[in-house]
Amino acid sequence: MRIVVLAGGIGGARFLRGLQRAVPDADITVIGNTGDDIHLFGLKVCPDLDTVMYTLGGGINEEQGWGRAEETFHLKEELAAYGVGPEWFGLGDRDFATHIVRTQMLGAGYPLSAVTEALCDRWKPGVRLIPMSDDRVETHVAVTLPADGSGSGERKVVHFQEYWVRLRASVPAEAIVPVGAEQAKPAPGVLEAIAEADVVLFPPSNPVVSVGTILAVPGIREAIADAGVPVVGLSPIVGDAPVRGMADKVLAAVGVESTAAAVAEHYGSGLLDGWLVDTVDASAVERVEAAGIRCRAVPLMMSDLDATAQMAREALALAEEVRAS
Amino acid sequence: MRIVVLAGGIGGARFLRGLQRAVPDADITVIGNTGDDIHLFGLKVCPDLDTVMYTLGGGINEEQGWGRAEETFHLKEELAAYGVGPEWFGLGDRDFATHIVRTQMLGAGYPLSAVTEALCDRWKPGVRLIPMSDDRVETHVAVTLPADGSGSGERKVVHFQEYWVRLRASVPAEAIVPVGAEQAKPAPGVLEAIAEADVVLFPPSNPVVSVGTILAVPGIREAIADAGVPVVGLSPIVGDAPVRGMADKVLAAVGVESTAAAVAEHYGSGLLDGWLVDTVDASAVERVEAAGIRCRAVPLMMSDLDATAQMAREALALAEEVRAS
Repeated sequence: MRIVVLAGGIGGARFLRGLQRAVPDADITVIGNTGDDIHLFGLKVCPDLDTVMYTLGGGINEEQGWGRAEETFHLKEELAAYGVGPEWFGLGDRDFATHIVRTQMLGAGYPLSAVTEALCDRWKPGVRLIPMSDDRVETHVAVTLPADGSGSGERKVVHFQEYWVRLRASVPAEAIVPVGAEQAKPAPGVLEAIAEADVVLFPPSNPVVSVGTILAVPGIREAIADAGVPVVGLSPIVGDAPVRGMADKVLAAVGVESTAAAVAEHYGSGLLDGWLVDTVDASAVERVEAAGIRCRAVPLMMSDLDATAQMAREALALAEEVRAS
Repeated sequence: MRIVVLAGGIGGARFLRGLQRAVPDADITVIGNTGDDIHLFGLKVCPDLDTVMYTLGGGINEEQGWGRAEETFHLKEELAAYGVGPEWFGLGDRDFATHIVRTQMLGAGYPLSAVTEALCDRWKPGVRLIPMSDDRVETHVAVTLPADGSGSGERKVVHFQEYWVRLRASVPAEAIVPVGAEQAKPAPGVLEAIAEADVVLFPPSNPVVSVGTILAVPGIREAIADAGVPVVGLSPIVGDAPVRGMADKVLAAVGVESTAAAVAEHYGSGLLDGWLVDTVDASAVERVEAAGIRCRAVPLMMSDLDATAQMAREALALAEEVRAS
């Protein structure tokens, strides 16, 4: 079975681990979000690609869900001692190596997709990991920063990482723009993998800044819609709140309420064939199905690998239902 | 008192610490060797400048004489896991920060001299540290690598660091070329510091690949010779062997024997006014003085800070003798 998964960071990576457990022999291609990539200290950092690679390759810090296990932060401490920031982005000593190798290869002329493949030669994640695009796409967020005492705050456009990590989504996102997406081309292999897929899955990743950014690369949404295979997603919203992260903040920016049903409608029946909501959101099933999307309520908490594998099985079962209908 | 010191790495840095102890109020300008600079992992590494900066700034690994105290090597381990080398150059996690800051500033258009000043803003070495040149100079070494079984070895030109660190000077250096030196200009402040100096000192640094490389930058040797102030050096050779390092290997390449007297003659009376040899080399005094260079035999082992400070006092005393003569 050939499965294509559109993945963001932590949620996508953990779902993928469950998927591998559920169907060990499946041929899985992961199309990774690169909209939250950032240049730091002259290095190209790809947080979502790395989270997938480290998680599936056994190098992840399990507790925090990102970064490397057995990590130290001496380099970062020293940069701070030099007065060189930003300090709010947590790059560990081991993690730095990935960014140094990537930056050197990019500088030598390799596209990001080839670099990612080379990095995965070490990590052997058991999936084919392809960045959504070799072109630079950078998610920016328009915010109004609180004023210091006086009346009106400062309107500003910040990098997604600055919004997410530094500001911790503490102010409303007024607009979210994947800068460069319109001019970006899907990376080599992306459209081919979709065309050859037996099923396409949207893990419980952020529907705006993860899956949404991937879909913003011209050609990817169309390829999925045209593939003629079941497209099934899992809600990242459980009981009207994000399972993790701050998806509600960015959903508000695109005018979507933070409910499992609203996210399904946001993707739309033109793209999505099936949708899994959590059992606490069973009342949403009717609304989703009314929107033309087959829907089931099953436990959606990735509390451990078994629970996550079961979610993957449910998604694949729903895909088979779609296919048979 | 204004003192200019031409410094290489470990030997120069340790001597400088003694000099600071001997004359705490002196205004010391250090002209640092950059011929052993190397690009590694896309980063600009300046081993000699950093050794001086870390040693005088309190960050040095005291036992090994280079690199940072309380250092870890996680980043390097990870680069090796990616198959990215060289593995023979020991860059620690803390040390990497210096090279990242330097590389970023160089990339932003600052010359190396301005970058070095910025790095020293943190370390406060108590001296003014200026690279010999803002232009790229790279010391290369011609060697014949041992053949595998068959008769003739492979002739090859390697970077100085490859000769020194990787090959540990295990094969004879056939030629030593400071590539780029002829086209290099002294960094801003170098010639001015020499012109305003009351005394110029050559610490017991390598006379070929440290002090010699600095003197190979057009204008520096001439400025020292023309300054009209005492120029006093300390022999890095004690009892016909280098005190540390492998100076004998590179002296042979320039046809100079490994003796305290031969090194003085190599600098020559046109440059050098005074020369300190170790007490075990007292018999060399006559030969050095016959070459027109005032010479004294004093203890030259930098065994501790007091002994090193005493060496600095002897050098300054010899300078006063020269001035009075």
